[in-house]
Amino acid sequence: MDEGSSLRYIESQSASIHYLYGVKDVIFLGRSTFQEVEILRLGDFGLTLFLDRKIQSAEVDEFIYHEALVHPAMVSHPDPRKVLILGGGEGATLREVLRHNTVDRAVMVDIDEKLVGLCREHLPSWSNGAFDHPKTELVFCDARDYVQGAEEKFDVIISDLTEPVHGGPSTKLFTKEFFEMISRALEDDGIFVLQAGSVDPVWLRFFSDVCATLGETFPIVRPLQVFILSFQMPWGLLMTSKSGDPRELTDEGIAHILEDRGIGLLRYYQPSLHTSLFGTPKYLDEAIARGEVLTDAQPYILDA
Amino acid sequence: MDEGSSLRYIESQSASIHYLYGVKDVIFLGRSTFQEVEILRLGDFGLTLFLDRKIQSAEVDEFIYHEALVHPAMVSHPDPRKVLILGGGEGATLREVLRHNTVDRAVMVDIDEKLVGLCREHLPSWSNGAFDHPKTELVFCDARDYVQGAEEKFDVIISDLTEPVHGGPSTKLFTKEFFEMISRALEDDGIFVLQAGSVDPVWLRFFSDVCATLGETFPIVRPLQVFILSFQMPWGLLMTSKSGDPRELTDEGIAHILEDRGIGLLRYYQPSLHTSLFGTPKYLDEAIARGEVLTDAQPYILDA
Amino acid sequence: MDEGSSLRYIESQSASIHYLYGVKDVIFLGRSTFQEVEILRLGDFGLTLFLDRKIQSAEVDEFIYHEALVHPAMVSHPDPRKVLILGGGEGATLREVLRHNTVDRAVMVDIDEKLVGLCREHLPSWSNGAFDHPKTELVFCDARDYVQGAEEKFDVIISDLTEPVHGGPSTKLFTKEFFEMISRALEDDGIFVLQAGSVDPVWLRFFSDVCATLGETFPIVRPLQVFILSFQMPWGLLMTSKSGDPRELTDEGIAHILEDRGIGLLRYYQPSLHTSLFGTPKYLDEAIARGEVLTDAQPYILDA
Amino acid sequence: MDEGSSLRYIESQSASIHYLYGVKDVIFLGRSTFQEVEILRLGDFGLTLFLDRKIQSAEVDEFIYHEALVHPAMVSHPDPRKVLILGGGEGATLREVLRHNTVDRAVMVDIDEKLVGLCREHLPSWSNGAFDHPKTELVFCDARDYVQGAEEKFDVIISDLTEPVHGGPSTKLFTKEFFEMISRALEDDGIFVLQAGSVDPVWLRFFSDVCATLGETFPIVRPLQVFILSFQMPWGLLMTSKSGDPRELTDEGIAHILEDRGIGLLRYYQPSLHTSLFGTPKYLDEAIARGEVLTDAQPYILDA
Repeated sequence: MDEGSSLRYIESQSASIHYLYGVKDVIFLGRSTFQEVEILRLGDFGLTLFLDRKIQSAEVDEFIYHEALVHPAMVSHPDPRKVLILGGGEGATLREVLRHNTVDRAVMVDIDEKLVGLCREHLPSWSNGAFDHPKTELVFCDARDYVQGAEEKFDVIISDLTEPVHGGPSTKLFTKEFFEMISRALEDDGIFVLQAGSVDPVWLRFFSDVCATLGETFPIVRPLQVFILSFQMPWGLLMTSKSGDPRELTDEGIAHILEDRGIGLLRYYQPSLHTSLFGTPKYLDEAIARGEVLTDAQPYILDA
Repeated sequence: MDEGSSLRYIESQSASIHYLYGVKDVIFLGRSTFQEVEILRLGDFGLTLFLDRKIQSAEVDEFIYHEALVHPAMVSHPDPRKVLILGGGEGATLREVLRHNTVDRAVMVDIDEKLVGLCREHLPSWSNGAFDHPKTELVFCDARDYVQGAEEKFDVIISDLTEPVHGGPSTKLFTKEFFEMISRALEDDGIFVLQAGSVDPVWLRFFSDVCATLGETFPIVRPLQVFILSFQMPWGLLMTSKSGDPRELTDEGIAHILEDRGIGLLRYYQPSLHTSLFGTPKYLDEAIARGEVLTDAQPYILDA
Repeated sequence: MDEGSSLRYIESQSASIHYLYGVKDVIFLGRSTFQEVEILRLGDFGLTLFLDRKIQSAEVDEFIYHEALVHPAMVSHPDPRKVLILGGGEGATLREVLRHNTVDRAVMVDIDEKLVGLCREHLPSWSNGAFDHPKTELVFCDARDYVQGAEEKFDVIISDLTEPVHGGPSTKLFTKEFFEMISRALEDDGIFVLQAGSVDPVWLRFFSDVCATLGETFPIVRPLQVFILSFQMPWGLLMTSKSGDPRELTDEGIAHILEDRGIGLLRYYQPSLHTSLFGTPKYLDEAIARGEVLTDAQPYILDA
Repeated sequence: MDEGSSLRYIESQSASIHYLYGVKDVIFLGRSTFQEVEILRLGDFGLTLFLDRKIQSAEVDEFIYHEALVHPAMVSHPDPRKVLILGGGEGATLREVLRHNTVDRAVMVDIDEKLVGLCREHLPSWSNGAFDHPKTELVFCDARDYVQGAEEKFDVIISDLTEPVHGGPSTKLFTKEFFEMISRALEDDGIFVLQAGSVDPVWLRFFSDVCATLGETFPIVRPLQVFILSFQMPWGLLMTSKSGDPRELTDEGIAHILEDRGIGLLRYYQPSLHTSLFGTPKYLDEAIARGEVLTDAQPYILDA
């Protein structure tokens, strides 16, 4: 099928805004226990994973999302040995973590074993062998159960969870109570980073509320902004720290770290970009100031 | 008509990627001498201007585009008195320029008088009176003719022209020959900034080529990246200078400038954001390094 | 705007089937007290009226619908002098009725005065002066109230009402109780014809139930089938009679009637077509046999 | 995937009219030597075959198309023993032909062996064993070559070929020269029937020209009209005869034939429907009168 194929995928951002993608090939359509899973080859975007009809990552720019989620956090820790990943079923977050040769244990906890199997089979370049890496431990359970029961502490924790768009299972993974569990599972010099939804001027309540909620637990909370073409909007990450400020690394410092850790070639992240990621538009600062603390009793309810 | 209206607008980014917008009201459908003009009220985006079926600016986030285009350039000049705007038919670039009280002459040159009239009538908050400001001179002619014939020199020149997506009239407004005319019309400490298309990882050849082309004329060329929701992709600006580096302003310095010039409330731009705008992802630097110089003989031909 | 315009209208037939029309011009978007009214100029279809987001009639083929609704019924009556039209806001049913020079009184009852005004203004060729014809009486009220209170009897009654797709105001205009009122308002040799929805093999429950319901009141009930391009599906009419069978007219008999009544040029209906309209596919006969009687207590509830 | 799935298929009728179908499952996407072949399971329509992005037949109503194409022609011949089918790759035309127990030889000629294999595998209820029937001969070659080289004569010939929408291989299967070959391959009391495109008031030039062209060769040419929901428009067949008029069968005569031949249960065709199929609207008769003869030198060129 050429680019002008008649098969299309419609992704709905809201009642008014829809994206219509040309589908070149249908790889998988189905469900796991937890969500609808669709893997398609789209024009321009290449292989693309949809969960519950929202794009998760696309071949063309998954490197942007995963490098932005992982490397700023990892370089902000002086010696990340133990890393915990929550979610991240495609395996690409794990792949980027393992590029840091300081790591000697990477635990990835995803609730959806079927999804991980589908990604391993159909999106092999996302994990690129990471699932079978000797330093990897793969755990299939609810992230909250895992963190609550964890007896070890981690240097870096990365939350790569879908936002609770339909009040689904991740609702209680963005609350004060959960972030306190995260804090207990984190070393004193630990870094916690999470993907936190869009930071565009229309739909930024989720990001703002999560930011406010993190502020209840962590002394340092820094918003980051990254643009992922296949998400069609500016995307927000939040990085927290119990001690140092991740924004204050120098270009030279980062260059040394990347070299020392044997990172190899990157495609998105580079030392000169680091500080820029922390720049925020005024409207975002104002929205953050209005953010409300999310709790188990009053979690995020989609305002769409 | 409520959000779920049945009237839609389809914008095509490529053969594979289309945006489908809910239309709440149709304000104007027609043509000027130069282009198709459509003004619609869309769900989420509000009043929106399309030229030749590409979104130009939307009520919801035109402030981002126009603040990003104008203020970083204006604060990079110590005393901008004479400002030239090329294109910018909506009047919002002019509106932002006039907020700097140093300005005593703002010339806006747009080829499309009918478009300017339509924007003045149907999108009044874009220009917000700027067309009638005593410091404004409005000229309706081809930007190249104007620059070539200009006998005065400007402190800041802002190019707010549509990229030559269909080989149209702006083709020769992005070439080495034109940029040399710009240079001659610019004071020695002048700043030239232009909007230069998308900087996403798929469609960045135009930006890269324009960047390379500017490098033939200007000693300092800086890419900037800004996120505009209604453009669905990261957007690139290019700022050039004959002398100082606009990236090196301090937060405090900018805060003073904004205060001295009586700018008032901004919604997007703020001192702490300035340097971040200049941060570039590695893939963009690599693309820029491959950019080819555009000339009148070999201008940009859309690679879509 | 040329045919390839970017403005579209989406009509939803079901959750799975949608029609996407190119919009060349937007004439009116709004609401009356009773329904959403949209008048657009579409590619291929020309001027088109939508009520509650369903196509009602289009310039390109309204002649088919209105000739099929009116003339088979009118020629089935030997001398139609008094005609009652229920609904038919565009005025085209009235226009066709008035072509029979036997008519000396044509009453049109539509609940929606605003809609009639919009059609008169924006779709003038539909009514073509019929609203101002001296034989016309235009009444704005609920059809049921009118029929219930009518003190005169009619030779032909034509129901040109929208089917109750959303449980709206026409729900009780397709019940046994209402059809008995119709019967009382009809002369003994009177003809009652109504548009009754699609007769395609998927969505034919409404037609079947209305057919069964009419059978409770009228000794002769005949289904007709007509093809209206802009409806995208085969359309069903139901003609009832208290005495003669409208299917048994001869071609020659119809030709004489049309000539005697000075009908003039027709575009769809002709004598040789008359009997064919009554031919029904086997699946439709089987569905009709399963039809259930609709009552005020148990009216039609959309099964979509 | 439920009805509200996000996967869609867009079929374009013209620049202005598009159908958007919900896709429940993707069975096959690919090409044969001759055409693009897509087999999908759509909401409401069920399993559906697209050739070159035009719907060919759908599970929900293929019975209408195939019964209408086959039975009126077969009953119009007193004793159809040898039947030739041109095209008809799905096998459903063959299936219906074999229901007449008079047949002792059914030859089906289709150029596209791969398509026939795909239909046999993925659409088994269409052929329902007909490809393996002892009376069937399956020939894979160009229909024109076959007819030109045929040494036997047939009682009934059925053309189930796609119209030459893009000037493709069927162009010379709708010309005077080809119809003369057909005539030579037909017994003196033979019947030739063909599907001949839409008979809606916008796109009826193809039908009209084919009708005019048949008139050059056959003394009796009769248009038929049938509505197939999944084609979205009224569909036209043309039946020709060298001697008797197929329109003049009586209901009783047809009932006897169907019983004698052991046809069994039908879903669309029935004796009382036969004559109705030949009823034509006036606009169609007028278009037919303007039809132009198609020849090998001047074949049909799509007027879309």
